[in-house]
Amino acid sequence: MFRPVRCRLPGFIKTYILTPVGRFFSCSIGMAKSKFEYVRNFETDDTCLKNCYIVVRLDGRNFHKLSELHKFLKPNDDRALGLMTRCARSVMEDMDDIIISYGQSDEYSFIFKRSSNWFKRRASKLMTHVVSQFSSSYVFYWKEYFGDQPLLYPPGFDGRVVLYPSNRNLRDYLSWRQADCHINNLYNTVFWTLVQRGGLTTTQAEDRLKGTLAADKNEIMFSEFDINYNNEPLVHRKGTALIWEKMEETVTKRVKLPNEDEKEVPVTRFRRRVSACHCDIIGDQFWEEHPDILEDDNC
Amino acid sequence: MFRPVRCRLPGFIKTYILTPVGRFFSCSIGMAKSKFEYVRNFETDDTCLKNCYIVVRLDGRNFHKLSELHKFLKPNDDRALGLMTRCARSVMEDMDDIIISYGQSDEYSFIFKRSSNWFKRRASKLMTHVVSQFSSSYVFYWKEYFGDQPLLYPPGFDGRVVLYPSNRNLRDYLSWRQADCHINNLYNTVFWTLVQRGGLTTTQAEDRLKGTLAADKNEIMFSEFDINYNNEPLVHRKGTALIWEKMEETVTKRVKLPNEDEKEVPVTRFRRRVSACHCDIIGDQFWEEHPDILEDDNC
Amino acid sequence: MFRPVRCRLPGFIKTYILTPVGRFFSCSIGMAKSKFEYVRNFETDDTCLKNCYIVVRLDGRNFHKLSELHKFLKPNDDRALGLMTRCARSVMEDMDDIIISYGQSDEYSFIFKRSSNWFKRRASKLMTHVVSQFSSSYVFYWKEYFGDQPLLYPPGFDGRVVLYPSNRNLRDYLSWRQADCHINNLYNTVFWTLVQRGGLTTTQAEDRLKGTLAADKNEIMFSEFDINYNNEPLVHRKGTALIWEKMEETVTKRVKLPNEDEKEVPVTRFRRRVSACHCDIIGDQFWEEHPDILEDDNC
Amino acid sequence: MFRPVRCRLPGFIKTYILTPVGRFFSCSIGMAKSKFEYVRNFETDDTCLKNCYIVVRLDGRNFHKLSELHKFLKPNDDRALGLMTRCARSVMEDMDDIIISYGQSDEYSFIFKRSSNWFKRRASKLMTHVVSQFSSSYVFYWKEYFGDQPLLYPPGFDGRVVLYPSNRNLRDYLSWRQADCHINNLYNTVFWTLVQRGGLTTTQAEDRLKGTLAADKNEIMFSEFDINYNNEPLVHRKGTALIWEKMEETVTKRVKLPNEDEKEVPVTRFRRRVSACHCDIIGDQFWEEHPDILEDDNC
Repeated sequence: MFRPVRCRLPGFIKTYILTPVGRFFSCSIGMAKSKFEYVRNFETDDTCLKNCYIVVRLDGRNFHKLSELHKFLKPNDDRALGLMTRCARSVMEDMDDIIISYGQSDEYSFIFKRSSNWFKRRASKLMTHVVSQFSSSYVFYWKEYFGDQPLLYPPGFDGRVVLYPSNRNLRDYLSWRQADCHINNLYNTVFWTLVQRGGLTTTQAEDRLKGTLAADKNEIMFSEFDINYNNEPLVHRKGTALIWEKMEETVTKRVKLPNEDEKEVPVTRFRRRVSACHCDIIGDQFWEEHPDILEDDNC
Repeated sequence: MFRPVRCRLPGFIKTYILTPVGRFFSCSIGMAKSKFEYVRNFETDDTCLKNCYIVVRLDGRNFHKLSELHKFLKPNDDRALGLMTRCARSVMEDMDDIIISYGQSDEYSFIFKRSSNWFKRRASKLMTHVVSQFSSSYVFYWKEYFGDQPLLYPPGFDGRVVLYPSNRNLRDYLSWRQADCHINNLYNTVFWTLVQRGGLTTTQAEDRLKGTLAADKNEIMFSEFDINYNNEPLVHRKGTALIWEKMEETVTKRVKLPNEDEKEVPVTRFRRRVSACHCDIIGDQFWEEHPDILEDDNC
Repeated sequence: MFRPVRCRLPGFIKTYILTPVGRFFSCSIGMAKSKFEYVRNFETDDTCLKNCYIVVRLDGRNFHKLSELHKFLKPNDDRALGLMTRCARSVMEDMDDIIISYGQSDEYSFIFKRSSNWFKRRASKLMTHVVSQFSSSYVFYWKEYFGDQPLLYPPGFDGRVVLYPSNRNLRDYLSWRQADCHINNLYNTVFWTLVQRGGLTTTQAEDRLKGTLAADKNEIMFSEFDINYNNEPLVHRKGTALIWEKMEETVTKRVKLPNEDEKEVPVTRFRRRVSACHCDIIGDQFWEEHPDILEDDNC
Repeated sequence: MFRPVRCRLPGFIKTYILTPVGRFFSCSIGMAKSKFEYVRNFETDDTCLKNCYIVVRLDGRNFHKLSELHKFLKPNDDRALGLMTRCARSVMEDMDDIIISYGQSDEYSFIFKRSSNWFKRRASKLMTHVVSQFSSSYVFYWKEYFGDQPLLYPPGFDGRVVLYPSNRNLRDYLSWRQADCHINNLYNTVFWTLVQRGGLTTTQAEDRLKGTLAADKNEIMFSEFDINYNNEPLVHRKGTALIWEKMEETVTKRVKLPNEDEKEVPVTRFRRRVSACHCDIIGDQFWEEHPDILEDDNC
């Protein structure tokens, strides 16, 4: 595999003092570096506009194939969904300035607070860091979710950065992703019910669903399979939102005051930790219950 | 109509026909999606200028800590270098349009040919894909290089995209990275020799090297430790270039022609595979020996 | 001046039918066009992020020289200021989506509403159109302000685009420019008073003002020259804001109803016109009095 | 403290020492400026990639209306074309780094050399400066071309910046514009010949030309109107290229050498001036005759 043969190998230098080629050589490269350094000026600035929410969304690459090869359950594989969320948590714990993440299927969105100055708001740094941490975590935590079933090859994700100037825009972005989750999950649930329990081929199921509305799909599930879609697991219907939760923690500490015996006193500390929620984030309630997530528009 | 009760499960709906909340609910979200979809228009176009080489460079994040925790050997750990190159190979095999990669220490650069149209030349896609594939490969292939020594946490890399309009600029970019490799490796080699064999503390070694030129460093190694720097392994002094190598492969095929007996004929096929090279890429020789890497400027 | 000599002149073609060079030639260029058209793909997209205010600011180029050559009065030449505002009005009347403009000295800022879709929000179109209209207006309207004094050469302006995501940011931008107006005008007023009335050389005046605060400058003017800076003209102290003013216009119309004699009826119409204001735009009052200028942040 | 009464003049302050409102007022704005200055950080960097040709192209806005109102001759008005070129010359003389300009109809392209560092290669500065200088020149020089016929309103131009990495790309860009000139001029020449000499209405002329090729158009002109298109003026068929021409200038200078009488000696100086050329710039000949225009690709 290693074939540096064709490359210019400096001959063996027996008496170093008499043949100072090496020194000169090294030296000349050292000086050459400054001659080449002008190429740094070809880098362009990709700083994100200030006072906008920075969204990094990543998507699995070719996850259709990945899910086939690893026999993911249809329509939802809880191991795969759990792993995705585990990775998102890893990203979030690594970057304080992410205020909320939202994931469904093979995608996850990470929202940086509008006042964030991480990586000086450089888009390339932000998106590559998120995608890199997520990707290495996917392999790292795989066995926690899939046990002995081996991961067959290193999976890929791609990412992008989008900016949102107002709270309304940001909420609409998240609503868009959750509405997408709903539409896809409803379709997939009926589709796989028709195939797995109704005995249709995938082509037949596709034909059956062509042109149906949400109400029709609910009706098929209810009348033919006695399934109330609203009772399907929330994690499938709503996806997963990760937020920071403030924790009150009481620990006991031994304290020694002057002229007193040492004694134990309770000490309350606040910590924050990432918390998962499979709930509606389209309506106002979620946001009213978590007023700290968004910063005020008037800043 | 909307009941986004926080993470609360909507109660069981007994008689679906009598309480059609679910159907209506689903439907409304479906329709809402189009209302939210305007947020797509906030994405910006980051297409790379045509007819320029696209360089994606990635760097390990906080690899100082990673190398300490995993006890990487100093000044070079061949397992770690081998793993980096294994990951780069994985990236390259995944993307035909990478014509050459160059790596040293905890960084790797991937060069896309100037006429490439991968991901429609979208910078964010190109860089996140490279960084993602590299990161998941790092965990995936870890055990091939570190055996039973466990990887303690998922590592991160960041990436960037830089464009170079001419062959001269691209070669100067690669020369810049290789000159950087040389300068760092020379320093690190003397530094760790002074510490490991000379018994100096790291602070003493630092002081000793302050203000020294390349020639001085060579001299210290030669006169005090009998080391000729030019005999140090090429992989440490030159880093690693990965290029595509055309392979001629002769296989035997059984052929049956009309009115003839079946017979075996030799068939020659051309394949390309990634090949590593630890050689000088600053001078002209390498480029003269591999005329296919660069496209002509006059295009 | 015209010297197309060195260029290939097709010889005179006597009998066109016998020497159809021309036809073929034309034809080949026509076909060639499509061969060259790929160069269009090198244009990059510079669409401004949606839902942000778009500010185009222009500055006079080398107006120090222009003002010297045309003997502008110091510290403020009302003809020059009037001409600037005349040009700004011309720009504003040409582009409905400008909600407010603010100018002082040789600069003017034009604010496009955050929902504007002019030129599809392409930054280059927006800024070049503003700067072009302003520049041609400067020459066109010159004589309205300078009468017979000729303009000696065509002046230049440069421009830039800046985006502001929130009302607060936009107001702070305008406040920044008005605070700049104040600081410069205060300085210039004292400076030229010291020179014109105090008999100092410009170097002496500069030295005298070195390190002085606003209060000191006010004191110099008041105690030495009996000038109360607050009585200086508002246009100099505050600059000029141009806004749209709704006008109620009552016209008389002759109307003929069936079975009635023709009669005159008053008809009220609303029109908007550009209106100038030399007032404080830093505080809340201006914005409370003109609630229509800014759109709500929550959109 | 702050009294931003709408466009109302603060009352006269009689005893300044007793009512120090003014001083405090000024001072507070001065300090406020630094509070607002954060808005500068919303400006984004738009530096052009190094080592690429920078093309600024401008186009007349709504020149159809301008040409109608000012009764431009059809198909070509030499006054209007002359004025365009006069403006381009004004731009070029103002900016040394423009190596060639090319214009036709109501558009002009200005090419900055690839190594240019004008305005630090900031796209917005480059394009607004070009467009501004061109626009003010259009009004300024109008009367040199249109004499007493007044310009009725200040015209507008818009501009854009495009980058080209190689000589080939740049030449193809210029070829694209010249092929466009040819195609339009051929069409317009036949069209207006049919109308002006053939007596067709504009609609009839349009119908007549629908679907015709270049050869057909040449044929119509030749057989029906005895016009050989190739004899039409070059400025109409080829447009105008402006380049720098080195001039050798011999002047006589009086020189006094020691121990000699004062005498007159001829001194040769080189100057460069803008020179117009109406020639083919698609083929190689023009570029071979002017080897100094393009820089080598290998830089």
